[in-house]
Amino acid sequence: MDATKAALPQVSFDTAPDRYRHWKLTFDGPVATLSMDVQEDAGLSPDYKLKLNSYDLGVDIELADAIQRIRFEHPEVHAVVVTSLKERVFCAGANIFMLRGSSHAWKVNFCKFTNETRLAIEDASAHSGIKFLAALNGICAGGGYELALACDEIFLVDDGNSAVSLPETPLLGVLPGTGGLTRVVDKRKVRRDLADVFGTVAEGVKGKRAVEWRLVDAVYPTSQFKQRVAVRAQELAAMSDRPASGPGITLTPLAPTVTDTGITYSAVTLEIDRDKRVATLTVTGPGPGQPDTVEAIHALGDRFWPLRAFRELDDALLRLRLNDPLIGTVVVRTRGDQGAMIAIDELLLANQDDWFVREIVHFVKRTLKRMDLTSRSFFALIEPGSCFAGTLFELALAADRSYMLDDPDAANTIALSKMNGGLLKMSNGLTRLETRFLAEPEQVDRVLERDGPFDPQAALDAGLVSFAPDELDWDDEVRLAIESRAALSPDALTGMEANLRFAGPETMETKIFGRLTAWQNWIFIRPNAVGAKGALTAYGSQSRPEFDFNRT
Amino acid sequence: MDATKAALPQVSFDTAPDRYRHWKLTFDGPVATLSMDVQEDAGLSPDYKLKLNSYDLGVDIELADAIQRIRFEHPEVHAVVVTSLKERVFCAGANIFMLRGSSHAWKVNFCKFTNETRLAIEDASAHSGIKFLAALNGICAGGGYELALACDEIFLVDDGNSAVSLPETPLLGVLPGTGGLTRVVDKRKVRRDLADVFGTVAEGVKGKRAVEWRLVDAVYPTSQFKQRVAVRAQELAAMSDRPASGPGITLTPLAPTVTDTGITYSAVTLEIDRDKRVATLTVTGPGPGQPDTVEAIHALGDRFWPLRAFRELDDALLRLRLNDPLIGTVVVRTRGDQGAMIAIDELLLANQDDWFVREIVHFVKRTLKRMDLTSRSFFALIEPGSCFAGTLFELALAADRSYMLDDPDAANTIALSKMNGGLLKMSNGLTRLETRFLAEPEQVDRVLERDGPFDPQAALDAGLVSFAPDELDWDDEVRLAIESRAALSPDALTGMEANLRFAGPETMETKIFGRLTAWQNWIFIRPNAVGAKGALTAYGSQSRPEFDFNRT
Repeated sequence: MDATKAALPQVSFDTAPDRYRHWKLTFDGPVATLSMDVQEDAGLSPDYKLKLNSYDLGVDIELADAIQRIRFEHPEVHAVVVTSLKERVFCAGANIFMLRGSSHAWKVNFCKFTNETRLAIEDASAHSGIKFLAALNGICAGGGYELALACDEIFLVDDGNSAVSLPETPLLGVLPGTGGLTRVVDKRKVRRDLADVFGTVAEGVKGKRAVEWRLVDAVYPTSQFKQRVAVRAQELAAMSDRPASGPGITLTPLAPTVTDTGITYSAVTLEIDRDKRVATLTVTGPGPGQPDTVEAIHALGDRFWPLRAFRELDDALLRLRLNDPLIGTVVVRTRGDQGAMIAIDELLLANQDDWFVREIVHFVKRTLKRMDLTSRSFFALIEPGSCFAGTLFELALAADRSYMLDDPDAANTIALSKMNGGLLKMSNGLTRLETRFLAEPEQVDRVLERDGPFDPQAALDAGLVSFAPDELDWDDEVRLAIESRAALSPDALTGMEANLRFAGPETMETKIFGRLTAWQNWIFIRPNAVGAKGALTAYGSQSRPEFDFNRT
Repeated sequence: MDATKAALPQVSFDTAPDRYRHWKLTFDGPVATLSMDVQEDAGLSPDYKLKLNSYDLGVDIELADAIQRIRFEHPEVHAVVVTSLKERVFCAGANIFMLRGSSHAWKVNFCKFTNETRLAIEDASAHSGIKFLAALNGICAGGGYELALACDEIFLVDDGNSAVSLPETPLLGVLPGTGGLTRVVDKRKVRRDLADVFGTVAEGVKGKRAVEWRLVDAVYPTSQFKQRVAVRAQELAAMSDRPASGPGITLTPLAPTVTDTGITYSAVTLEIDRDKRVATLTVTGPGPGQPDTVEAIHALGDRFWPLRAFRELDDALLRLRLNDPLIGTVVVRTRGDQGAMIAIDELLLANQDDWFVREIVHFVKRTLKRMDLTSRSFFALIEPGSCFAGTLFELALAADRSYMLDDPDAANTIALSKMNGGLLKMSNGLTRLETRFLAEPEQVDRVLERDGPFDPQAALDAGLVSFAPDELDWDDEVRLAIESRAALSPDALTGMEANLRFAGPETMETKIFGRLTAWQNWIFIRPNAVGAKGALTAYGSQSRPEFDFNRT
């Protein structure tokens, strides 16, 4: 089987409000309105029409971009109303015909990205002082309701027709897998028996019952709806600690050089070796002449190294996921000046009360989570000249393993900063050091208190790296590790990594990616959903699905 | 597709030490020794040989029985050594040829049962004062190591050859799905990068490194091994709060009447309607003349209603899972005297310091968990004459929905007891009332404080039942609910229920059943594992597996 020939559409994540085809982003003082108005004929593929504000990945890329830009470009925005410009329709959810026509890997990665986008909404609410109000002006089904669930509050129009629903199970034989089931019982705390009913009635729930069941926060008649939304949006905006006015920071296009064998950005490169199914991800640390005041950081804007480098890293990870599914192992390298990296960390930590610095830190955090959640094996290679220090050491901690060269003739160190101590939490609510040292929590403080870098033996003794081969063993040990990884079942590796990476407590976020996503992935490959007579296949045709009714 | 014709071996869970074929259970004062000695030719099916102490469901049924009997029949046992009678072999794990030849549903239910058995070991340690020491006298691979992980401590012989290993991913393209991955990082807190290495090297880890990596607690040379195990077993036994001597309570065979359309026990019946794919589970509450002292309870032994009824319920659930996979919906009914049920609860609560009473309560707890974890839809029907009170009301709380008839001409009530308030915790560490009322935790105390039963309106108002149709609507509403459930995709229902039933905190147990099991189930249906050239299919043959290397 020559799987290396698989051709996929090359997805770009680059967009901007003036190029949006599916969303309108408007501003009115502290309130932004993000209105869904999906163009039926502007899907990523011509094979389906995006009717009734149904969405594909392209629609969600714009949504993710809009949320990101509100955070960076519009500090004066304190609340966001998420609504629709279509009459009597909020959103019909993910496009079924798109799902039906997609490969398993595409479905899984589409859902992963849309999950990350919804979690980014909740991250903005929790950490950036931006509250989200879902203003459901019409029918709100499946992924549409899952988008609403990610908002802080949900208002539904009470017009006798508009309902919220999760019709995935009754109509399609799949799950509301973009956080839907989890958020219904864990975030909105809908009683489990009512959630069971809600999850099996295709028509959904509307009006007062939707409020009583906690599915929405309020319903209002059409005549009052817009005004109630406007009033509540102002109230939500008043809670914010964001600046009263701008200017914001413009996010300019990344414009990487993309070739058949890699992607080159300013601080990040991704080199693809398709024969070996291995990619090399290299991040270059901050150079000389970094700013030392908050004013200078603002003046640099998106050219400031942490934002620039992590935007590039984020983009590289996303392209890798969608465009290069055959790459199983990613070798992670860094290079640069560790002192400059630590200085940047200290600068960020000293200025956390600045809104822009806060946004940068949370963006770095989200990018590192994106790495944790990427189903590829990551091996960090720590060699002389590398820059695994502070924030960039998180890349080694996020990796499944790390190898550090112990060559007496070539100095090689790693270093920690306070940034490793608390701000860059994983989905499980712990830092990567806390997750690493679950067995000996006191080791977290011990390694953070060290003044100065760790040489290979010290790093190994401290448990900060997996292995420290000497110069005689290095080449063979690293090569064998990479080669043997590439030979293993990619599915087993995905499952193994999903279980080993997130020890410790569970959060709504890890539940969504661990429990809900895993079940959805299972269902996405079962004949009852995707077989010739499965429900996803039969949807929209004249034929009814036929099930193998064996329960597992 | 006429799936109703599917024929499966009828599995019985009835066994006893004098009939074990694969284990020897011996006693030496406070220490029991449970020795694996699997008979190659005594598998449930003649299609495979159980070499090297590999196991199938039949082996695990004996293990589960042994643990149960130690708890009830041998109160004088305070520690259990789990070891093997085979030279240089502890256990090679689940039998690969059995897995390869099994249907997906069988694999899933086999793993579920073995997971429950290992959790029963941990339950005995946490709640019954019985500590478990895994004495690994030889190679210990896959499910063998997962069994060891369920014990409190693991000793490994240091003979230069014996290793612990999880070869599932490198050899078979599947996961160590019987809790292995979860327990490695969450229970033993093995560092995630070391766990990653351990999970990908087929030969495993032995000697000092196994201790350093926290995979085992100690290694001893062959010459010292038995003596060290014996000494430590005595130390563990000394920690127990169990009685110094018996007598225990003999668990006599349940001996139900099994026909093609159902199973009849003394207090439980399971009626199977294969055409509708619906079963009716009826539990009859305690009759008149229940004991009122601990002595009387002991005198009744396994004829005491709670133990008898819940042993029958447990057996019925297990048979349903394995022998009737086409039954998708289970209607749950009860009948009997609510006052007698509440009196039993009060008697149990008043005598919790008695070892036998304690065992009964934890057994009831485990049986109810078995119901939570059974992938069938449960609808409780609460009608006049029913006995949904106290412990038996947990059946309604465990159900996905409950319907309570509100007929002014026929009194119909439910009632709570203190047993609903704390002892019968779910896998998520909460009671079913706490899970139900996550949105309003104060409601838990409010309903528990009520003196007396709830009529249908009061039960509905209190949120204790899902619906309370009147006598005009009852038949249609119940019939439609059951019929429409039976028409849905069984896979989507399984995934939905697995997500909705366990809101709130996660525990190692919910991680095993939610996250790890879901990923394993996904992998168990992927071509890379079970396809014509998948790793599970290719194992033991001359051909190497061929993978689709697309990552998801």
